[in-house]
Amino acid sequence: MRQILDDGGDLTHWVYKKYPNVFKKIRGIVEESVTGVHRLYQLSKAGKLCVPAMNVNDSVTKQKFDNLYCCRESILDGLKRTTDVMFGGKQVVVCGYGEVGKGCCAALKALGAVVSVTEIDPICALQACMDGFRVVKLNEVIRQVDVIITCTGNKNVVTRDQLDRMKNGSIVCNMGHSNTEIDVASLRTPELTWERVRSQVDHVIWPDGKRVILLAEGRLLNLSCSTVPTFVLSITATTQALALIELYNAPEGRYKQDVYLLPKKMDEYVASLHLTTFDAHLTELSDEQAKYLGLNKNGPFKPNYYRY
Amino acid sequence: MRQILDDGGDLTHWVYKKYPNVFKKIRGIVEESVTGVHRLYQLSKAGKLCVPAMNVNDSVTKQKFDNLYCCRESILDGLKRTTDVMFGGKQVVVCGYGEVGKGCCAALKALGAVVSVTEIDPICALQACMDGFRVVKLNEVIRQVDVIITCTGNKNVVTRDQLDRMKNGSIVCNMGHSNTEIDVASLRTPELTWERVRSQVDHVIWPDGKRVILLAEGRLLNLSCSTVPTFVLSITATTQALALIELYNAPEGRYKQDVYLLPKKMDEYVASLHLTTFDAHLTELSDEQAKYLGLNKNGPFKPNYYRY
Amino acid sequence: MRQILDDGGDLTHWVYKKYPNVFKKIRGIVEESVTGVHRLYQLSKAGKLCVPAMNVNDSVTKQKFDNLYCCRESILDGLKRTTDVMFGGKQVVVCGYGEVGKGCCAALKALGAVVSVTEIDPICALQACMDGFRVVKLNEVIRQVDVIITCTGNKNVVTRDQLDRMKNGSIVCNMGHSNTEIDVASLRTPELTWERVRSQVDHVIWPDGKRVILLAEGRLLNLSCSTVPTFVLSITATTQALALIELYNAPEGRYKQDVYLLPKKMDEYVASLHLTTFDAHLTELSDEQAKYLGLNKNGPFKPNYYRY
Amino acid sequence: MRQILDDGGDLTHWVYKKYPNVFKKIRGIVEESVTGVHRLYQLSKAGKLCVPAMNVNDSVTKQKFDNLYCCRESILDGLKRTTDVMFGGKQVVVCGYGEVGKGCCAALKALGAVVSVTEIDPICALQACMDGFRVVKLNEVIRQVDVIITCTGNKNVVTRDQLDRMKNGSIVCNMGHSNTEIDVASLRTPELTWERVRSQVDHVIWPDGKRVILLAEGRLLNLSCSTVPTFVLSITATTQALALIELYNAPEGRYKQDVYLLPKKMDEYVASLHLTTFDAHLTELSDEQAKYLGLNKNGPFKPNYYRY
Repeated sequence: MRQILDDGGDLTHWVYKKYPNVFKKIRGIVEESVTGVHRLYQLSKAGKLCVPAMNVNDSVTKQKFDNLYCCRESILDGLKRTTDVMFGGKQVVVCGYGEVGKGCCAALKALGAVVSVTEIDPICALQACMDGFRVVKLNEVIRQVDVIITCTGNKNVVTRDQLDRMKNGSIVCNMGHSNTEIDVASLRTPELTWERVRSQVDHVIWPDGKRVILLAEGRLLNLSCSTVPTFVLSITATTQALALIELYNAPEGRYKQDVYLLPKKMDEYVASLHLTTFDAHLTELSDEQAKYLGLNKNGPFKPNYYRY
Repeated sequence: MRQILDDGGDLTHWVYKKYPNVFKKIRGIVEESVTGVHRLYQLSKAGKLCVPAMNVNDSVTKQKFDNLYCCRESILDGLKRTTDVMFGGKQVVVCGYGEVGKGCCAALKALGAVVSVTEIDPICALQACMDGFRVVKLNEVIRQVDVIITCTGNKNVVTRDQLDRMKNGSIVCNMGHSNTEIDVASLRTPELTWERVRSQVDHVIWPDGKRVILLAEGRLLNLSCSTVPTFVLSITATTQALALIELYNAPEGRYKQDVYLLPKKMDEYVASLHLTTFDAHLTELSDEQAKYLGLNKNGPFKPNYYRY
Repeated sequence: MRQILDDGGDLTHWVYKKYPNVFKKIRGIVEESVTGVHRLYQLSKAGKLCVPAMNVNDSVTKQKFDNLYCCRESILDGLKRTTDVMFGGKQVVVCGYGEVGKGCCAALKALGAVVSVTEIDPICALQACMDGFRVVKLNEVIRQVDVIITCTGNKNVVTRDQLDRMKNGSIVCNMGHSNTEIDVASLRTPELTWERVRSQVDHVIWPDGKRVILLAEGRLLNLSCSTVPTFVLSITATTQALALIELYNAPEGRYKQDVYLLPKKMDEYVASLHLTTFDAHLTELSDEQAKYLGLNKNGPFKPNYYRY
Repeated sequence: MRQILDDGGDLTHWVYKKYPNVFKKIRGIVEESVTGVHRLYQLSKAGKLCVPAMNVNDSVTKQKFDNLYCCRESILDGLKRTTDVMFGGKQVVVCGYGEVGKGCCAALKALGAVVSVTEIDPICALQACMDGFRVVKLNEVIRQVDVIITCTGNKNVVTRDQLDRMKNGSIVCNMGHSNTEIDVASLRTPELTWERVRSQVDHVIWPDGKRVILLAEGRLLNLSCSTVPTFVLSITATTQALALIELYNAPEGRYKQDVYLLPKKMDEYVASLHLTTFDAHLTELSDEQAKYLGLNKNGPFKPNYYRY
């Protein structure tokens, strides 16, 4: 084994624990998930990461395409396939206005839903304001809302107490992370009845007959009830492949025992490979322009802190 | 003099050259423009920056609000006040899909213009595709286009050769940077007649009678022909004030002779101060949630590489 | 039998032919489809319609909700369920910019597709321009297009000759009317191979290996591959029920042997019954305002030629 | 004098009263305003309209272009030129969801405002829901709102009582009709101070210091504080010219002493003349298709009740 390509960090952990001698000799790890990356940074902080690792989760193409653009479509797809809900006029709360939340909000607003946002981060909250969304606390709107979508990466964002106050026929689902965002465990109590009405769709029924529609038992809607377009898979796979090649070919010393972001030039390369699909034509810098901007004509074109 | 608050770097340069002894003793420089920041980084690279400097141009609130959200409105305002053009159905090319270009594109698309984009950076080009814009080379569309808007930060993005091929009545203007993007100098030749039809509006007339409408002689449309909302000025001023206070109060050794980005927590603080205007209500993390996320309940809420 | 509630006109035709004596004695016909309405108007022109008929197909609520708002959602749903296509960046041609076409265009534009329109009617074409769509002839773009959607009510809008020129992997489907819009019959020739890849999805394969993806064999995508929201069904059913009641209760002489539109007041009543779903609060005219406008406080609120 | 081209009905009224003998001999009247059309219908009902009149106010091109598309742009222009307000995040109430209200709502929503709607007509209210706007009563939101825009054609839509409850710095303006919609007269009382801060902009100051910003003294914002694009003027002028020609050339008996809508074919002709501006290419029906649809290849393409 020369390299590890991981999604979640389980393989990395297993090799690290079971085969420490193999682990020490690999050329590098490429990790694509939030969780796996988190575990790598922890290993690094603890001084136990004895090989270079590439965090491809935070490359631009991954973040924007896998999260923003992909979720903009899969939220609609996931809701339609499971519930046939009409979006027009529906009151929706999106919890979290990161890339995933931004995608969900944009799509639902465009289709005529009335969307509000909850946020903990004032910068993202101000972005939500500028994009035309009311920033509210969930408790303020819980009784009126038709659909709640969680996109926070956090836990217990929707609590039993809030689920108790949702109205009959409302929908609750998770686009964020794992199955922690909705406190689903709190719904597994004797006084509530669960009725499976379709694959991935449960009606949770309160003693007074009220039904709340829970999708995918609180797991990720986009993975459970929608599909990932091949275009997005291609972006991700290309990024992973380039990261593996880079780690393998890198001259001694370029990467130490630490976690790295994919070099921007490779991020740009992944993007450029996918432009032809759209018949997009890049403009090339003239020598004079490249000199004026202080850039290499072939990139990278932006400083590392650029936000896109 | 204890601190310098600069926009463009001229004051910094003047003090540095004329009063080197004063310069050495100041507590810090706060610089808000692209150009000024560029000069600071050059000084730093050359080892000549003997005081700490704060780059507030690249703080999130500045980038997103001054560029994306502000330009989304001022492009419409600037075009209307100067030309009364109807946006619906117009064929527009926006050169550059950075924050400014994204703002211009979003606004014009929303009002019914048919917008194309030119880009040198494949990542931004792919974003333009995903947002529904054709990515073209200017030469491919120059004969059909009704309006060209430059937002690149580059020079000679629109050349005399291209201006020669624009159609009668088309408009060309700059939202990007300085007055270099349109090659205005090339239009000051004997065979072309300039007619000032209104403040900031020139008709450049070709020998065959064709007129191209040049706004603000190629200088920044948003500064010359539009206004900056007080909300955006407030964001900027708050950011500058906090940066000055931070440099002044910082304990010895926190800032060395280098260029720094505003600490994220201050960026977040600027945002939070402006949320009340919108009656926006932030959600607060519970202790349990903060622990789960590994965050302080008061922020900062994101890693430094987060892109918003 | 006292009344006929029909969708397509077949029942009406059958009773008319088989049981002329029953037909003469019924109180009225309520017809909801374009085709059925067409047949009624023909009967009326020929002087053979001996009972009153209500054309509910052209009531406002039916037209706007069943067509514009419903199709805005079902085009996305239908395409996703069948092909998992990513909308962002796709080049789409929508043939026909009536209510259905407007709905399809709005949805796809909002999700980042680059949409063009074909039209025969200059008014609808100008609306497409104002809404930001290029108005093209299909032949001009046929080689570049990723998705063709027909919404014309016409026949042979996409011909074999055009299908021959579509690119590999492109999708063709019908949102308009019956199964006539795409010339599907022309694809059933020996040199082309059909491959059923999924329910409602055929790959038609050219000798050189090119595949065009045909959905629902050219029948209506929204009926074959999507679902109709209960909200829209409720609007339609309410309209039908009110039309039946009106015909039944109408005093002698209000309706003669002709085809009528639903009285506007009933159209308004259908709408008002559905406002509570959205927690929408109507404003009531004061006596003074009603007098100023020359309106009854309870409606109808618009002249018959009002377009909404 | 052979024909009258009127806008408001004053000229018609004057000729009718002062020169009844001239009036009787004219070939026809072309009237373009809501008010003038209203007066013509009244004359007609009273049996006093002794010449044919053409209502061009309700032709499709006039309604959609002069109202929907033009106001979509002029609301932004009018607000910016007078107040420099930033649209992003502002809470706006639009009173009336007809063509003008639809245009205002679409533009402001697109630029990030949070828009609510008031309506008296349940059909328009349901359209507002489907387009993603909360339908509220003005009193429910009056204390939170940043901007009120009236587009109703009614009187006293914003009353003194409501103006008393608006918050400091809020803006009130009229896009609808005449100067009746905001009860401006009620603001001319001793306890309120008026301060003219700019042309067309008054601050009305309450005893406690609260300022409400009143634009154009309640007259039409789009006429007082914005410009009308030449494209829209051209549509209107063409429509008027065609109406005059039609009335003049019409064979004896085509038009009686009544009010007529412009023949649809002319409406279509006006549209077709303006398509070239947008490089729009109409598709032509084949003989076979025209026969299938029962249409003439040259139009008209729609029944009279078609709503566009």
